[in-house]
Amino acid sequence: MKTIDLNADMGESFGPWPMGDDASLLKIVTSANIACGWHAGDADTMAKTMRLAVENGVGIGAHPGFADLQGFGRRRIPLSHSELANLVTYQLGAAQAMARAAGGHVRHLKLHGALSNMASEDAEMARVCYEAALKVDPDIVIMVLAATAQEKVVRALGCNWAGEIFSDRAYNDDATLVDRKLPGAMIHDPGFAAERILQMLEEQAIIAVSGQRIPTRIDTICLHGDGPEALAIARGLRARLEAAGYGLKPL
Amino acid sequence: MKTIDLNADMGESFGPWPMGDDASLLKIVTSANIACGWHAGDADTMAKTMRLAVENGVGIGAHPGFADLQGFGRRRIPLSHSELANLVTYQLGAAQAMARAAGGHVRHLKLHGALSNMASEDAEMARVCYEAALKVDPDIVIMVLAATAQEKVVRALGCNWAGEIFSDRAYNDDATLVDRKLPGAMIHDPGFAAERILQMLEEQAIIAVSGQRIPTRIDTICLHGDGPEALAIARGLRARLEAAGYGLKPL
Amino acid sequence: MKTIDLNADMGESFGPWPMGDDASLLKIVTSANIACGWHAGDADTMAKTMRLAVENGVGIGAHPGFADLQGFGRRRIPLSHSELANLVTYQLGAAQAMARAAGGHVRHLKLHGALSNMASEDAEMARVCYEAALKVDPDIVIMVLAATAQEKVVRALGCNWAGEIFSDRAYNDDATLVDRKLPGAMIHDPGFAAERILQMLEEQAIIAVSGQRIPTRIDTICLHGDGPEALAIARGLRARLEAAGYGLKPL
Amino acid sequence: MKTIDLNADMGESFGPWPMGDDASLLKIVTSANIACGWHAGDADTMAKTMRLAVENGVGIGAHPGFADLQGFGRRRIPLSHSELANLVTYQLGAAQAMARAAGGHVRHLKLHGALSNMASEDAEMARVCYEAALKVDPDIVIMVLAATAQEKVVRALGCNWAGEIFSDRAYNDDATLVDRKLPGAMIHDPGFAAERILQMLEEQAIIAVSGQRIPTRIDTICLHGDGPEALAIARGLRARLEAAGYGLKPL
Repeated sequence: MKTIDLNADMGESFGPWPMGDDASLLKIVTSANIACGWHAGDADTMAKTMRLAVENGVGIGAHPGFADLQGFGRRRIPLSHSELANLVTYQLGAAQAMARAAGGHVRHLKLHGALSNMASEDAEMARVCYEAALKVDPDIVIMVLAATAQEKVVRALGCNWAGEIFSDRAYNDDATLVDRKLPGAMIHDPGFAAERILQMLEEQAIIAVSGQRIPTRIDTICLHGDGPEALAIARGLRARLEAAGYGLKPL
Repeated sequence: MKTIDLNADMGESFGPWPMGDDASLLKIVTSANIACGWHAGDADTMAKTMRLAVENGVGIGAHPGFADLQGFGRRRIPLSHSELANLVTYQLGAAQAMARAAGGHVRHLKLHGALSNMASEDAEMARVCYEAALKVDPDIVIMVLAATAQEKVVRALGCNWAGEIFSDRAYNDDATLVDRKLPGAMIHDPGFAAERILQMLEEQAIIAVSGQRIPTRIDTICLHGDGPEALAIARGLRARLEAAGYGLKPL
Repeated sequence: MKTIDLNADMGESFGPWPMGDDASLLKIVTSANIACGWHAGDADTMAKTMRLAVENGVGIGAHPGFADLQGFGRRRIPLSHSELANLVTYQLGAAQAMARAAGGHVRHLKLHGALSNMASEDAEMARVCYEAALKVDPDIVIMVLAATAQEKVVRALGCNWAGEIFSDRAYNDDATLVDRKLPGAMIHDPGFAAERILQMLEEQAIIAVSGQRIPTRIDTICLHGDGPEALAIARGLRARLEAAGYGLKPL
Repeated sequence: MKTIDLNADMGESFGPWPMGDDASLLKIVTSANIACGWHAGDADTMAKTMRLAVENGVGIGAHPGFADLQGFGRRRIPLSHSELANLVTYQLGAAQAMARAAGGHVRHLKLHGALSNMASEDAEMARVCYEAALKVDPDIVIMVLAATAQEKVVRALGCNWAGEIFSDRAYNDDATLVDRKLPGAMIHDPGFAAERILQMLEEQAIIAVSGQRIPTRIDTICLHGDGPEALAIARGLRARLEAAGYGLKPL
């Protein structure tokens, strides 16, 4: 049976400020990328989100980002290689202990926001981050943006990894995402989104807006959970995948 | 051979601001209580301090505190029990991963500042913090303020623990420290400090300023490292203990 | 014509996290207590909220709180008198400049959360905070919890002030609020809320749940804006006050 | 009589972490650039530093920087124009109130660290920051890096400004500073430093290491205060300037 993983970012509430509908999302996804308190989330939010993930049988991932709450980790902050390694090590360690306390364990790692964007362009930066994670847990699964420098790095490292595509974002010919400011960058039609994803899975290739195919390994699909529309898309995609014979399974 | 552990707080630099002379202290102590980035320290300082600790064969401890950099964790912040547990879990986990990356491991836990003071008065609070740590690592050694509520709790939990006294602070009859504002609260004479500690070790009791003995188990002595005077006291105490036949050994 | 001011806390979004429906509230209230970035809000949120307040002719207030984003300023943090004064001075100054940039000015000051609660019990603490504000702007209107230590202090200082009551909270006989955990602490019925407020205004007294009257000066009524229910209560109260012949006017 | 201003960054301590010898520096300089709590400093440090500045008759400047304590405002953080304006407005306002409370007032503004570096290359960014400051205080003196985009912007704005050169840094032919990693970037010889500065003042031009002259207006000289050597250079320069007939005077 063909299997696929669905992932979403969560645990992004902070103090009195809620974000996202994690409880609903955890009924749909098989992997949760949980913020580690530097760009979003806090220890209490992590505890709650991880307990929910364990209850729903959803795989727990550490989702480290820049120390920039106000900017939500979306601003590019120049760090040295050792600072990057320490950032990943610290947040992954915190997530591991929180997961243990919740009765689970951290099974994967996915970089967040600007940190991920930078590492998708800069192989050296990706390598530093991933080596830091592997030093803490040699068996951890590194979730990478498929067909970017991130993928090159995990292939070279020979570690466990999972290639990720986006359910609702259009791709350029070089596997980067179409700029959000351009028309067609976001895919709003649940039906179209699902068919496109199915086709990519069948071909194991990213399909750019131009129609061009970029061969890659696709192990997981990133869903977004903000707003009722996003949940509807997520549910629709899951149903369509199951109808097409895919088993939904954590990494 | 009689053995004793010497411990000190360190890794308390933050960003561009240095604090303490960790490199020198690490030649004297056998256990390092390393700040975890909430009340002092940051991931980069932790990395550097832990590497130094490993190089010097000094035992690594997680030293969690309140999320209060400006107040250095010395302000009493009211937290719920679950917030306390999450605070300890998060910081201990971060410390574990940083220690692993430095080639070591976290062997003990000591609460910092106001968090420790509150837990020395409030057994329930101590229990919540210690249970959180033990859930992450059942074998961790909990370092407690000897003869306080902290000690009662670790005895009840039946976990690994170490009783701690201070090298340079005078004690009241109830094992609390003499208020810093009162004369005689701080012990400045290295010779007197060393003899007093030796006597407490022989009697396995805290000796209050009144002369009263409070029986307790003494496994470790807390040194302070701010300023050259403190280093001199620390060195003097170590030499005196060795001369008296004590082996200096990590917990 | 009798006049009354309606106030609400706002500008409490932070970075990517929205809070409250400020745009709707600003159609109802005449005074806005705007968070200053320590317990909630940030410079960008302040700018946006103050522009909206100016556009709606709503009076701008600085709403300083403890430096505790995660705790939303609701945790009691022990500060020295000079730390308290500096906290108020800094946040008020930031608010003044932001208001000027938005084409307005800060006309009142109201303490937030735990800082306000502590100052309502501790006259000395209230005095320190208010004197700090008056040193920056001798004409500023201090908004105080009516019939508490806060009111005593502003009367003694002889400064501009406004006495505040809550639209949706039940009072004890000593003018403190009924604990939220007790039944009846929150008033949910818009009609009852409005009639109770009208009666308090007529009598210029707080009416406790026991029926007891606590004479005080009532200049402003605090509304809450979280959720559609709160907005309905706020709108209902405003309409009822206007029907009763009250002019709604900023302080 | 020819006059010149000497300035230095100060108020850079944070919480328990001291930085710099502000008390000594304030005996030498005539203008103090005081950190505003985002990249360094805190409200209590500001209060203390401003009181000392007032006591020493030293002009107070707001020294805003990026919200990056750990990075000390030295990391380039990409902000939108409105975020930049709000950053400057907020920090300047806070500084104004703190200065008022200390019995003084903010007379100048100087951007800090990476914010200043970016604004010295990007005229649009400089303009946004300076216009924000002028909106708060149209008479404020903007301190600019002489002969950079910062100077172009203040000339175009027609506002009060002061051109600044560094006492201990070598210049390239385009008025940028020689990279710290290159030999000769830092000037350590007090005698040479003083003569070079005197010559620049006489010629009203930056003298690059190549000997090239870059004509500019020189109103103030930036001193550094870290370490006893820096204080010696600062004192030496002041004495030499006075011997050469310069009056030391705040802007």
